[in-house]
Amino acid sequence: MSPVVAPRIEFSVMHLKPLSIERLCIHQVTLMQCDFLQSMETLARHGVTKTAIWRDKLDEVGVDEGARILRDLGIEVISLCAGGLLSASDPTDRRKAIDDNRRWIDQAAAVNAASMVTITGGLEDGSRDLRSARDLACQGIAELVPHARAAGVKLALEPLHPMVCGFRSVISTVREAGEMLRELDAPDVTGLAIDSYALWWDHNLEADLAEAAADILNFHVSDWLPQTRDIRLDRGMPGDGQIDNRKIRKWIEQVGFDGPIEVEIFSDLDWWKRDPDEVVSTIVERAKTVL
Amino acid sequence: MSPVVAPRIEFSVMHLKPLSIERLCIHQVTLMQCDFLQSMETLARHGVTKTAIWRDKLDEVGVDEGARILRDLGIEVISLCAGGLLSASDPTDRRKAIDDNRRWIDQAAAVNAASMVTITGGLEDGSRDLRSARDLACQGIAELVPHARAAGVKLALEPLHPMVCGFRSVISTVREAGEMLRELDAPDVTGLAIDSYALWWDHNLEADLAEAAADILNFHVSDWLPQTRDIRLDRGMPGDGQIDNRKIRKWIEQVGFDGPIEVEIFSDLDWWKRDPDEVVSTIVERAKTVL
Repeated sequence: MSPVVAPRIEFSVMHLKPLSIERLCIHQVTLMQCDFLQSMETLARHGVTKTAIWRDKLDEVGVDEGARILRDLGIEVISLCAGGLLSASDPTDRRKAIDDNRRWIDQAAAVNAASMVTITGGLEDGSRDLRSARDLACQGIAELVPHARAAGVKLALEPLHPMVCGFRSVISTVREAGEMLRELDAPDVTGLAIDSYALWWDHNLEADLAEAAADILNFHVSDWLPQTRDIRLDRGMPGDGQIDNRKIRKWIEQVGFDGPIEVEIFSDLDWWKRDPDEVVSTIVERAKTVL
Repeated sequence: MSPVVAPRIEFSVMHLKPLSIERLCIHQVTLMQCDFLQSMETLARHGVTKTAIWRDKLDEVGVDEGARILRDLGIEVISLCAGGLLSASDPTDRRKAIDDNRRWIDQAAAVNAASMVTITGGLEDGSRDLRSARDLACQGIAELVPHARAAGVKLALEPLHPMVCGFRSVISTVREAGEMLRELDAPDVTGLAIDSYALWWDHNLEADLAEAAADILNFHVSDWLPQTRDIRLDRGMPGDGQIDNRKIRKWIEQVGFDGPIEVEIFSDLDWWKRDPDEVVSTIVERAKTVL
């Protein structure tokens, strides 16, 4: 009699529940080719009930109309993307950035978003001072805390990929974001947005996620294409690249995260050119195998 | 009488000696538009006496001819670039990679290079297992240690920018490289190549460099362009971008580094299209103000 041999199961998939359609969230920006209504109708047509709203799209229809569309279609908003951008040093620019963010937080509240994804902002023209930009952003977020608390909207600080450091962000790792959260010292209203595209390369990611477990508010996924053609707008469909999204999901779930899995694809070169139904049906299929 | 006001000095420039032409090294790859002889003649014409040799260029003329050219022009070779690429899992591929590296180490010794810049190699086609690739590379480097020791060539492990993670490297920070060095446990023959372009975004860089001080063998500089158009070949001339190279030089010098400052610019879109004399004279001028 031959011995019983257990089938080889990828470590990354062990103990991981299949991703139900109810837990799947597709960010509105993934359908940049659509207007506000079209994007939400496309999600609804495929049974997707969760999204994150892109600010520019919301501004096109206005908050009241946007909220009505979402209500009519039964779509829940996880986050508003993206606020922050608070690294300017000029006092007038800083005041304007704070005022903008207060308005965005109110917009997030109006569409019942639990969080506003918050990025630090980059370096000013001609500046090479990362530390100063980081400190200015941290002070700016601190100023927003009372307003966010009153509005019931959490600020989900998102480290971006080091290749956009200086452009939209000056923090690039969970560790750096965690340090900023400790400085902010407002755990009831600040937390983390974890994006696999931004962080997959980091060998300390599992340990850093475990340490940051209580702060994780959002989990964004897409894929890293081996032949990336653009610094910002060439993200891949999950399954087409080099990121083990299931492994990263396992890491955050084993430390307690049970929120939605949010697909966010910036793809000026490919997916933004395709039929929106093809984009959503592809994501729904891929969710069964690689998310 | 008006009070004496000290001129405002950037913190990053304090206590930093001007960079003499004797300490300036220009990597051969910065002059990709030249053949071996032309590139070295261009350096010599501008009084630059140090280089790092690009393997493909050396192969075009052969080691004997290359060594003769360098001797005739009085140019010192700091490193051979780049070896390693040891992350393959297939035994035949691994054997070939080890053999190649032994040959490259011999080439480095033949041109009196003190070190071979060593990168891990990326992910294999279809693989998403960063950890495994990293471990395979570490084992491969360990196999090279006796040969490198015998040849008198140090292996300068270089973390690359996270945006090339998976392509040419699977380690992206000084911290990750330092962990690999501890695992290799061969401090007489392994160390670090620090590249400002790869690492400038990291808020823990100063602390990590202090911890790794004894291991720093090489210091490469170029600049991060705010509008980077290519993942690999759009590095900027020092002074044209967002990296404070003087600050990073200060960080490594205050923990004991006193080696050459090596300019390494991959620029398919700009500097590789220019007259080589313009490239070198620009670097020599910039070295006085931003390096």
